[in-house]
Amino acid sequence: MTVRIGRRYGFSATHRLFNPALGEAENRAIFGKCANPFGHGHNYEIELTVRSGVDPVTGMAVPLSKLDTLVEDAILADFRHRNLNEEVPAFREVVPTTENLAIEVLRRLHVAWPGTFPAAVILEKVRIWETERNICELSNES
Amino acid sequence: MTVRIGRRYGFSATHRLFNPALGEAENRAIFGKCANPFGHGHNYEIELTVRSGVDPVTGMAVPLSKLDTLVEDAILADFRHRNLNEEVPAFREVVPTTENLAIEVLRRLHVAWPGTFPAAVILEKVRIWETERNICELSNES
Amino acid sequence: MTVRIGRRYGFSATHRLFNPALGEAENRAIFGKCANPFGHGHNYEIELTVRSGVDPVTGMAVPLSKLDTLVEDAILADFRHRNLNEEVPAFREVVPTTENLAIEVLRRLHVAWPGTFPAAVILEKVRIWETERNICELSNES
Amino acid sequence: MTVRIGRRYGFSATHRLFNPALGEAENRAIFGKCANPFGHGHNYEIELTVRSGVDPVTGMAVPLSKLDTLVEDAILADFRHRNLNEEVPAFREVVPTTENLAIEVLRRLHVAWPGTFPAAVILEKVRIWETERNICELSNES
Amino acid sequence: MTVRIGRRYGFSATHRLFNPALGEAENRAIFGKCANPFGHGHNYEIELTVRSGVDPVTGMAVPLSKLDTLVEDAILADFRHRNLNEEVPAFREVVPTTENLAIEVLRRLHVAWPGTFPAAVILEKVRIWETERNICELSNES
Amino acid sequence: MTVRIGRRYGFSATHRLFNPALGEAENRAIFGKCANPFGHGHNYEIELTVRSGVDPVTGMAVPLSKLDTLVEDAILADFRHRNLNEEVPAFREVVPTTENLAIEVLRRLHVAWPGTFPAAVILEKVRIWETERNICELSNES
Repeated sequence: MTVRIGRRYGFSATHRLFNPALGEAENRAIFGKCANPFGHGHNYEIELTVRSGVDPVTGMAVPLSKLDTLVEDAILADFRHRNLNEEVPAFREVVPTTENLAIEVLRRLHVAWPGTFPAAVILEKVRIWETERNICELSNES
Repeated sequence: MTVRIGRRYGFSATHRLFNPALGEAENRAIFGKCANPFGHGHNYEIELTVRSGVDPVTGMAVPLSKLDTLVEDAILADFRHRNLNEEVPAFREVVPTTENLAIEVLRRLHVAWPGTFPAAVILEKVRIWETERNICELSNES
Repeated sequence: MTVRIGRRYGFSATHRLFNPALGEAENRAIFGKCANPFGHGHNYEIELTVRSGVDPVTGMAVPLSKLDTLVEDAILADFRHRNLNEEVPAFREVVPTTENLAIEVLRRLHVAWPGTFPAAVILEKVRIWETERNICELSNES
Repeated sequence: MTVRIGRRYGFSATHRLFNPALGEAENRAIFGKCANPFGHGHNYEIELTVRSGVDPVTGMAVPLSKLDTLVEDAILADFRHRNLNEEVPAFREVVPTTENLAIEVLRRLHVAWPGTFPAAVILEKVRIWETERNICELSNES
Repeated sequence: MTVRIGRRYGFSATHRLFNPALGEAENRAIFGKCANPFGHGHNYEIELTVRSGVDPVTGMAVPLSKLDTLVEDAILADFRHRNLNEEVPAFREVVPTTENLAIEVLRRLHVAWPGTFPAAVILEKVRIWETERNICELSNES
Repeated sequence: MTVRIGRRYGFSATHRLFNPALGEAENRAIFGKCANPFGHGHNYEIELTVRSGVDPVTGMAVPLSKLDTLVEDAILADFRHRNLNEEVPAFREVVPTTENLAIEVLRRLHVAWPGTFPAAVILEKVRIWETERNICELSNES
């Protein structure tokens, strides 16, 4: 039996939608108030979806404590209570939209994942809620 | 990188589950209290899922303000604070169940979408919550 | 020990914000789209707050099944899946705003309550959510 | 037109993460506090996803009252207010993790489903929320 | 300036509504399925309300980390993942309804509070959600 | 009949818990990660509670559109998508904790309220959710 496990994490951070390669006016035209110089923030929610068989002994697809440690170390510890533009190197030149945030989360999981779980435990997707009405999903396919 | 964007909208409306081609008794047998003559209402929630690449300059898959305007004009302006049976022509002879509501939403998006976004921006699905426990999803496939 | 019990109920209904004593234009000026002729609806939530001592034998302040039956019979059975303006006599000449809905709920509880619970079980207030952002609270004081 | 219907149900139950084939210490090592001898509980939420065409007469994909009766009889009546380890035979020797709970729910639906709905009404998946942050999804494929 | 701080905590536990001083039949008559012998559980939510002036230096009414430690040590560590009837001595002979749970929480806070915060930091009330629809509030007055 | 109206608004902003009158180390000791130099953010929710009689003609306690305009102009327009420390003068030397945010919201309402509503429309309290688990309430008494 193969199941999909969804595991959700929350963190608060600041971002500014601003591309340093463009001028002020152009950023303002593209991002509106989201380009305000000092940034604004969100209570972000991240959900990982992991596909795996179920261990017949434990009845679990993946040890959640292991997954939690991996996500804490690879992602949350760097993002929580941070200004993503200023304090996360990946967003120095990349606009920290929810889309790029999802891409960075997946990139970090690609680095941290190997060796942590058996090969049959597959990270399928990452979803990020910026607010209840704005969601970005990134599949880990191909 | 291809992502899926989820964007949620809410509106309040009235509907009556009643097929004018059938008699009172038959409607009552099929729809129960939902066939009450004066209708009842819901705080509906709609979520669109859009698949797209991420623009390397803006970091965004789709300009949300453009999507919001499209949805406001094509759907919400006609549905918000309306009686779907009486005020939305599509439901004159079609029962405004959540299923048919999703079909009408997708039909309207098919009309309004072309030319608004580049061809690579794909509307994948529509989901409607009538209540937190009743959901209808319609894929925009094939 | 005196506690307050909160108990929540949901129902879906239609209302139209319209005062039949005023003309169309005046209603439109006051209520805007909420005056649309065929009404619109909501998933309403009602919460009753009941103050009571705790029964030392049952550990309960009030038997919830008794409260549920009272609310079902006195309120929900008449409101659920109904058009409040057309099908609830109290709203024939009274605009079914959330305020007046709370007043009507309290009036009905005043009729149904006596004799159901011991005198020490006090109905303290009624709260109604029309949406997550619009709430009306009515105290049962004096 | 083919749609997917999501229908959600809630129930409260107790479980203990404990494999009787292993010793106390091993259970404690695997499940931590979740192995506490007397169990702990959750307000579980189950969502079924059903794929179906839409009946042109009723505008519905599946009669919800029929689905509700099936789920009540096959699942909720046995799980609600129960200790899953002690009172549901399937979990006598199988650890009632959310994964195994989803498998048992699907197994019961496989027994109850045939003959209830037309063949074109397909049960696609089962999702269970143990908490808002722990979700297990089981596809009914192959 | 005096403010009220609300702070919420969650924990999962099992309870059985059963008064050992009464017989099986009487318990069943009072508590219905909630008297099932092996108990059932909930994802409980507790909210404390604390009234206090605001420290002009920190801008805070009460150091949340201190409050969190107090609640963790005095309440959550004993309740989380536990069977309240079997593992919390206070409920050996007292039915662990939400009402009695609130009383026990307040009793424990009365023991743990003194000396932790300045005298001007007042615990005003405790609220417990057993489910989204069942709430018990206990004031810390007189 | 006097009712209480609750009206909720949301906005996203950044804050840094940092008192410029103290040194780095002291700020870090008091505020921990919340003192990170570039700030972090939240999806804040504000709820105003307004007490008023119900207008017998409109059935409303307070015209919500008027209240919404007042709150938009006096509060949201300045706070939305802003860094509270850097862009809201009140927080130049005052730490923008939720407590101080509530005090500033109330101060602004004191300025904007008079003349907008009849004297019998009383602003009773302000509540702010920083997250679902952190709430600050400020009464407008005396």
